[in-house]
Amino acid sequence: MPETDSDALLRANVEFYRAFAAGDLAAMDALWARSVPVSCIHPGWQGLFGRVAVIESWGGIFGRPPPISMLAARAHVLGAVGYVTCIELVGDAVLVATNIFAREQGDWKMVHHQAGPTAEPIATAEGDPARLH
Amino acid sequence: MPETDSDALLRANVEFYRAFAAGDLAAMDALWARSVPVSCIHPGWQGLFGRVAVIESWGGIFGRPPPISMLAARAHVLGAVGYVTCIELVGDAVLVATNIFAREQGDWKMVHHQAGPTAEPIATAEGDPARLH
Repeated sequence: MPETDSDALLRANVEFYRAFAAGDLAAMDALWARSVPVSCIHPGWQGLFGRVAVIESWGGIFGRPPPISMLAARAHVLGAVGYVTCIELVGDAVLVATNIFAREQGDWKMVHHQAGPTAEPIATAEGDPARLH
Repeated sequence: MPETDSDALLRANVEFYRAFAAGDLAAMDALWARSVPVSCIHPGWQGLFGRVAVIESWGGIFGRPPPISMLAARAHVLGAVGYVTCIELVGDAVLVATNIFAREQGDWKMVHHQAGPTAEPIATAEGDPARLH
């Protein structure tokens, strides 16, 4: 079966968390869009705007990368833009994230990321955390 | 000057916070998209998926609507999809939000909302909180 837009979007989202978990700045850099401005809201931070600020922030985080896994990803395709909602397990914290992607030369590239804490117990019915290593 | 896509996006975002501040469920309902599935991540909650769950959640919140104002909105237009990042002042809490909109019969309609706490002091250089009443 050919890969659907939705499958490709979920795959791009997994690649994001794989780069995050590995602290791989080159991979992270490659995941972000170049054709449009990007933005990022890390947990507890305010927004970062523009590719330089966003990639620099990952460089800082990767100086001491936290253990992270991701689960319960849901793809939402809106034509040439898509977003994924998912749960992040970062150390002992449970976060919830919105990741926006745009099509760039056929690939889904990240345009925006927001993660913030959730107080609710995680639902495990949707599967175990994705294996990122 | 004709209204730009970006202006219209910011206007839709203000309408969202106006409905929120007023606890106006009919206005809130009208703001959300009907042509695509919608989702919503309230602060501390996990995701809500689908129009019924999302609108019901606003009904619950509007049973006891918190005082809210919004500032530092930035529009990010990606063709027929756009998103706004902004700061929310909810009671004593400072939150940061991502609001995704899609074009529906010419209007920007809300597709997704995520708000979460920020620990950073707010920058006031970008203006005072929007007047929502």
